Amino acid sequence: MEERIKLSVLLDLYGELLTEKQRDIMNLYYNDDLSLSEISEITSTSRQAVHDIIKRCNKLMIQYEEKLHLMEAKIRIEEIKKDILKKIDLLSIQDDDNIKILSELKKYISDSI
Amino acid sequence: MEERIKLSVLLDLYGELLTEKQRDIMNLYYNDDLSLSEISEITSTSRQAVHDIIKRCNKLMIQYEEKLHLMEAKIRIEEIKKDILKKIDLLSIQDDDNIKILSELKKYISDSI
Repeated sequence: MEERIKLSVLLDLYGELLTEKQRDIMNLYYNDDLSLSEISEITSTSRQAVHDIIKRCNKLMIQYEEKLHLMEAKIRIEEIKKDILKKIDLLSIQDDDNIKILSELKKYISDSI
Repeated sequence: MEERIKLSVLLDLYGELLTEKQRDIMNLYYNDDLSLSEISEITSTSRQAVHDIIKRCNKLMIQYEEKLHLMEAKIRIEEIKKDILKKIDLLSIQDDDNIKILSELKKYISDSI
């Protein structure tokens, strides 16, 4: 996974463990795609401090992932979901009742997992 | 959920975020069911310190759950799993190929989720 995308996913998973200021700066950087200078202006924080906060939070979130493995679990559950849907498609079902049940089942899996 | 069981589940989910000493004491208390005095002796820590560590870690883990909701997600995914298996059982399937696919699918869901 590309580093920037990975850190954006980690921010989504662990952002709540950061302080409000850290989270704001990380969101501006990873989700709103602003430059360090723009974030510096918006948050009235020096460019150097913004840089340091991003660097520190990247490290923090990677440490959280090493301990809790939430991103790993998220990727795993996505694969399980795909596998289940693929296995369901192996069934050859003709009658209307079963077709209806299967279609509801697939919708439930797609929406809930 | 009973408080002690809840804290044992939280320890399983967030234990890695505690220090090694905190985690050891919490495991002795919640998983090995030892008394404060027994833990005090084993870990060469005063009974009062053991008590304080357990109290502080309980609070910490409840705060982590308020932020990351891992226990909530765990309970939710268990319910989804049950729902999927229940919906699969609504299918009325007679032919051998489909029965085999369904049985493999159910095993896969039971083992992987």
